Amino acid sequence: MNKIRPQLPTGMRDYLPADVLRRQYVINTISGVFERYGYEPLQTPVLEMQETLMGKYGEDAEKLIFHAKHPMGKEELALRYDLTVPLVRFFALNESKLSLPFKRYHIAPVWRADRPQRGRYREFYQCDADTVGIAGMEADAEAVSVAVSALRELGFREFAVKINNRKLLIGIGQYAGLEGEALSNLYRSIDKLDKIGVDGVRKELLDNGIAASIVDKIMKMITSAHSDRSDSYAAAAQNIGALREELDGTPSAMEGLDELEQLVNNLMALNTPAENIDLDFSMVRGLSYYTGPIFEAVLLSDDPEERVGSVAGGGRYDDLIGLFRKDTLPTVGISLGIERLIYIMDKRNMYPPSINRTVVQVLVSVFNAETKAESMRFASELRGEGIRTELFMQDNKGIGKQFGYADKKGIPIVAVMGPDEIARGEVKLKRLADQHEVTVLRTQALDTLHSLLD
Amino acid sequence: MNKIRPQLPTGMRDYLPADVLRRQYVINTISGVFERYGYEPLQTPVLEMQETLMGKYGEDAEKLIFHAKHPMGKEELALRYDLTVPLVRFFALNESKLSLPFKRYHIAPVWRADRPQRGRYREFYQCDADTVGIAGMEADAEAVSVAVSALRELGFREFAVKINNRKLLIGIGQYAGLEGEALSNLYRSIDKLDKIGVDGVRKELLDNGIAASIVDKIMKMITSAHSDRSDSYAAAAQNIGALREELDGTPSAMEGLDELEQLVNNLMALNTPAENIDLDFSMVRGLSYYTGPIFEAVLLSDDPEERVGSVAGGGRYDDLIGLFRKDTLPTVGISLGIERLIYIMDKRNMYPPSINRTVVQVLVSVFNAETKAESMRFASELRGEGIRTELFMQDNKGIGKQFGYADKKGIPIVAVMGPDEIARGEVKLKRLADQHEVTVLRTQALDTLHSLLD
Repeated sequence: MNKIRPQLPTGMRDYLPADVLRRQYVINTISGVFERYGYEPLQTPVLEMQETLMGKYGEDAEKLIFHAKHPMGKEELALRYDLTVPLVRFFALNESKLSLPFKRYHIAPVWRADRPQRGRYREFYQCDADTVGIAGMEADAEAVSVAVSALRELGFREFAVKINNRKLLIGIGQYAGLEGEALSNLYRSIDKLDKIGVDGVRKELLDNGIAASIVDKIMKMITSAHSDRSDSYAAAAQNIGALREELDGTPSAMEGLDELEQLVNNLMALNTPAENIDLDFSMVRGLSYYTGPIFEAVLLSDDPEERVGSVAGGGRYDDLIGLFRKDTLPTVGISLGIERLIYIMDKRNMYPPSINRTVVQVLVSVFNAETKAESMRFASELRGEGIRTELFMQDNKGIGKQFGYADKKGIPIVAVMGPDEIARGEVKLKRLADQHEVTVLRTQALDTLHSLLD
Repeated sequence: MNKIRPQLPTGMRDYLPADVLRRQYVINTISGVFERYGYEPLQTPVLEMQETLMGKYGEDAEKLIFHAKHPMGKEELALRYDLTVPLVRFFALNESKLSLPFKRYHIAPVWRADRPQRGRYREFYQCDADTVGIAGMEADAEAVSVAVSALRELGFREFAVKINNRKLLIGIGQYAGLEGEALSNLYRSIDKLDKIGVDGVRKELLDNGIAASIVDKIMKMITSAHSDRSDSYAAAAQNIGALREELDGTPSAMEGLDELEQLVNNLMALNTPAENIDLDFSMVRGLSYYTGPIFEAVLLSDDPEERVGSVAGGGRYDDLIGLFRKDTLPTVGISLGIERLIYIMDKRNMYPPSINRTVVQVLVSVFNAETKAESMRFASELRGEGIRTELFMQDNKGIGKQFGYADKKGIPIVAVMGPDEIARGEVKLKRLADQHEVTVLRTQALDTLHSLLD
């Protein structure tokens, strides 16, 4: 047969075993935190009907969706673009089997045909926790709090979850007398605050025809809590109070401020560290489907190579389920940017020592052809005791080469059983890291191994 | 916006939380066994280049492959059809980073546009362990042994891994004077033994023009170890010896019998229970790429609803990697039929009591609006101690309704904190299964919870 050049699709990755072990550590840590908050695991198919995905993300985003089809099939399918639309499709289809609230998490790959660039892939994992069916701010507080707990459990301390509210942003726009297109332009300008600064935003608003006196008031409001890392819930309450005075008489703003106040109170009740919470009235977030509180987590780092953008994001999207069922249901969630977190964790080496390059704990070496069966028996005994054991299987390699193999793979311990050891019912166990070596009776091998592995 | 009918693609499934928990138990159990044998986790993308998949499985199989493409993209992609071809593609692409042998496992979904029917899906999981780079029968023995260990660890006892060798089958054909098309027909007839019986196979062979005296000898050979569950390795050796005498002078058969003998000896050295091993010279397996030993596991059950076909299969395929690199490399593996196993395990309820319908261990109820913050604080304390805790979040529901909610969801324990308990720094913990109830100081809640959960 003709040879085929082995090749990966553009922007897609293989994960070598050492990669998988690190990624699994991150995924297991996060799913453990999600479960402690009572979110249940859910899985949906990789393929959805194209119709399910279209019309939810905005035109530019939808251009990135991969289409799929069976050549003989009639269904127009697509690979999921995120885990949120599959959740609402799932809920509408299965609600008779579910109780409200439905709290689920989902950690799985999604596909986007983005232009490949460093650190951006066309298959990548998302990591979501959402609550369907609760309008109250307890659910929003849990979404923020679970993100804070997950980031802290992974070892992050210097980060802030920025919090804002879409209703407040609408209220600020109404207060400025804007509607329709002009309101959207206002969000777009505010969203640029981090990039173009206060003067840049002010200029854009003036260019859009907003009166200078109103622009001044808007700028004062949106910067009143911007990057104000006062590390206290009292300061957050004060900032909310100040806006409440200014925006009195704008119902949408009042509703947004009420929600923010309840959210902050609930975060306090959930013992969420205030140092990781940052009210930010200038934060907008891109997605059009948000309807209330919005969240976005950033790492606080001076290292330019660690400027990866937001590492978590979410909010309330009370209208989305309404696309699939008669009445909509209140829904709120958070998505952790697991690929960016892994990038930073790799860079900083934030993994515990137990996360090795290999799963193997012991290599059972083979002295010669005659002793091979005895090595197999010993490997089988260790496996029966739960030890992750590799039997050396290459032919005609001396013990030196076998040690080299273990060293290259990162296997911590090598077991040696030559004819003498076998005759005495013994085994020699050697820890490669410090060359510590003990010869013990095989009946004591398990205890010795455990102490060598500790 | 217009409503969209929530809909799944044909033959695809959502896994509700209770499904995911059972499936995760099975996957974790099997991956634990794979790791004890020293197989490392590998992950490859869902999408492969179409060119990678085509020409490996046979025409009929390839008709089932889903195609994928980005509308603006140039690459012709496909969803993986199994995990074996992605492994050899991966190996050829990454071998400079790997040591030989490369032992990997992979548990992940694959896609096939099969006609949907009961228990057959278009997205389903495969569960593979393979060894690249070892020609010796130790690798084959580990493939068989790891399947036996995994099935036993899941709680199966009554099953047999049938073992045969493609070289032996070729030898039997040569012995009968067959080649080319006639040889393929021979395999096809032998493969039907379980369906059409000894007389049916005999008739087919005679119809294909094989002399009656040769047909007699073939039938005697292929049935000599068929379903001969003598539960001893000595019997297997005897059966091999008998064929060796008959086929002396047919080199391919001798090679196949040598391999079988070594395989059996290695299975013995690995302490693989003989009751689960069944030499079967009539077993063929469909895939064309096998070159040596082949394996197939079946459950031994009298229940017609449990006749699910094979629950594991594999073998040696020494030529496949040669499609992607200059020289091929010996490769052998096993694939567990995880979907069929889960079907049987669900039917027999083979899950440990710890596998519940929900991850949640405690529901913290809310007495009224005034005590809600205190319930949140308590939920947060429990979460900090690693207890999977749900805070009740629906508004205006009495304690009775909250108990009903816990009961419906399968949450084992409800924590109640009314104004009296809060004033005394206490909490009431009630186990729903037996209505056992204790009121303890909040400082002792954790110990009490652990004993109630045991």
